[in-house]
Amino acid sequence: MESGERTHSMEDKIFVVVPDLKQLVTEILVREGLTPADASITADVLVRADQRNIPSHGVARLKRYIDGLQEGTIIARPNIQTIKETPVSLVIDGGGGMGQPIAFQAMQKCVAKARNHLICLATIRNSNHFGIAGYYVQMALQEKMIGLALTNTAPLVVPTFGRTVVIGTNPIAIGFPTTDGKPFLLDMATSTVPRGKLEVYARQGRPIPDCWACDSEGLPSTDPVALLEELQQRKGGGLLPLGGASELTGGHKGYGLSAMVDILCGVLSGGAFGSHLYQDKNAPSGVAHFIGAINPEAFLGLDELQDNLARYIDMLKNAEKATGQDRIYVAGEKEQEAEERHRERVPLEKKVWQQLNAIGERYGLQLQAVGAA
Amino acid sequence: MESGERTHSMEDKIFVVVPDLKQLVTEILVREGLTPADASITADVLVRADQRNIPSHGVARLKRYIDGLQEGTIIARPNIQTIKETPVSLVIDGGGGMGQPIAFQAMQKCVAKARNHLICLATIRNSNHFGIAGYYVQMALQEKMIGLALTNTAPLVVPTFGRTVVIGTNPIAIGFPTTDGKPFLLDMATSTVPRGKLEVYARQGRPIPDCWACDSEGLPSTDPVALLEELQQRKGGGLLPLGGASELTGGHKGYGLSAMVDILCGVLSGGAFGSHLYQDKNAPSGVAHFIGAINPEAFLGLDELQDNLARYIDMLKNAEKATGQDRIYVAGEKEQEAEERHRERVPLEKKVWQQLNAIGERYGLQLQAVGAA
Repeated sequence: MESGERTHSMEDKIFVVVPDLKQLVTEILVREGLTPADASITADVLVRADQRNIPSHGVARLKRYIDGLQEGTIIARPNIQTIKETPVSLVIDGGGGMGQPIAFQAMQKCVAKARNHLICLATIRNSNHFGIAGYYVQMALQEKMIGLALTNTAPLVVPTFGRTVVIGTNPIAIGFPTTDGKPFLLDMATSTVPRGKLEVYARQGRPIPDCWACDSEGLPSTDPVALLEELQQRKGGGLLPLGGASELTGGHKGYGLSAMVDILCGVLSGGAFGSHLYQDKNAPSGVAHFIGAINPEAFLGLDELQDNLARYIDMLKNAEKATGQDRIYVAGEKEQEAEERHRERVPLEKKVWQQLNAIGERYGLQLQAVGAA
Repeated sequence: MESGERTHSMEDKIFVVVPDLKQLVTEILVREGLTPADASITADVLVRADQRNIPSHGVARLKRYIDGLQEGTIIARPNIQTIKETPVSLVIDGGGGMGQPIAFQAMQKCVAKARNHLICLATIRNSNHFGIAGYYVQMALQEKMIGLALTNTAPLVVPTFGRTVVIGTNPIAIGFPTTDGKPFLLDMATSTVPRGKLEVYARQGRPIPDCWACDSEGLPSTDPVALLEELQQRKGGGLLPLGGASELTGGHKGYGLSAMVDILCGVLSGGAFGSHLYQDKNAPSGVAHFIGAINPEAFLGLDELQDNLARYIDMLKNAEKATGQDRIYVAGEKEQEAEERHRERVPLEKKVWQQLNAIGERYGLQLQAVGAA
């Protein structure tokens, strides 16, 4: 499952030590004005993405965050306000701060409230990119709760029968706890693929499947170079919802899911949505989230949930395999295994490592490589 | 959006008067042992599907329900039990009864609890096919609440990298209220298409898109006749999740969504899931549901939700159209318009009408046609 671009190739990768990487990112963010606590949370979310093999949402994003902080479109020390609070819900205004600490705080509050009142759902406006949605779900899972994290994102997706980008890749993440540390954790963009996938295929000179993107006429296209050019020149076209351009292939379902996410995040919170996000380069992005925690005690309790879920996962994994396949995966399994592989050392693209060191150099900070893959 | 098969052709259709149709279905179900109240609810759910142009889930299903009632695999007067109740949640055992009255009661309870406690989520085991999921969401919308209805279904879908059916078409329905009677109402199966679509293409001798179904090797196929034959002979193969057979086209996302539905319904309720549903023709099906109501007062209140949602829907509908398209739809819009068109008279396939009259004849009941389309 993915909420971002995966890189499976190990070419041009170098390894770094996880605590070193977190420390570097934390220190850079502190120098950019974040509190040490907020900087540390943000670093943890970013590094977790690299550990889980979702490098598009990893430390490669740091440069963009720093640009935002320096330009003032992201507020380093935001005034995060609880606009409304009930025993089972929250409306939060993020004050234009970094998405990671805002979403982290929201999930902490949801878990605390769900401990007493069994369910808590929070809608959050005026935030920013929060990294991998699955991170906040993992927070709930750690507390043996069901976790939920959605966010709207920059408009990159064309609705069914449209020809311009008005909705985001709006990911859905939901997780259920297990006893073996291998939770069911679905974390998926509601577009077929993220934009990064088009860039990879463009670089490789390969055609893309016709359910990935449409051109400025709104018609499916397999030419990633032309598509990216049209997108950049704002001529139209964009990513397609899960299911592609046509109702025949279910594209209206991916579109519907994306809109659902936008409503739970942007509409419900009284925040920004759809094409209004990232509308002005010199203004806050307006990103909105929806975060939730559900205590299994609301239903039959943790033990019964975990027992039943173990039987369910066994059923899926033991099903007969397609020709040429030897394994059926469960949502989040590949990412969980990657995270375990990268507990101590994590691979970075060489150019990402170089960029980090270039940023660090401004403050006399450095990140050692511990080997190439 | 769809949770079932649509028929857009008006060939071989006849029209019947809505109250007549409901009365016939109600009377038949009363003769089969249901209480008048339960029979009337079931009739309303079935007829609503025909009104909303989802005939696969309409009165065409009645024959199968009656077979189940007569064979004893569906209990006409079930002992519906609340296994657990908290201010914000319910676990219900449906006692093997008809799905419609069980889900109807559950949503009524959710709405009542959400009125006092803002949120109520219910997981329901030991039920049966409940018709269109969107019906129960409409109940919440009627009360100006956000509604949620999921169900697991007979195993017809092959998980990513599998080759046999172990999960259902497991629909997701969610709706948000508006002031103009045109709610956002997403109601979608998590497979690309329902089995009925394969049958339509088989009858027409047309190839199907390769994201609809896979053969007994687990490989995508475009031959619906061969696929249906393999399925019937239990050789393997089946429907594909939304996104198709491959991770490249996002099939793992549809698979993940289907599993999520199964966990919320079957796993969380301590009920049946996946391949265990409809396992024995002579035993209860084990279908499980997840139903929820969220009071907008949990967030910024109904007025603000409706205002923001109206702006959101406008943004979507006013986006530029693809070449050859003159309209962008919002989830549920097509079905809402069909329902309005069919407030008084509803079209039925001629063979469905004939079947209904054949059933009615046993009890001296008859359904008049009021014209052919």
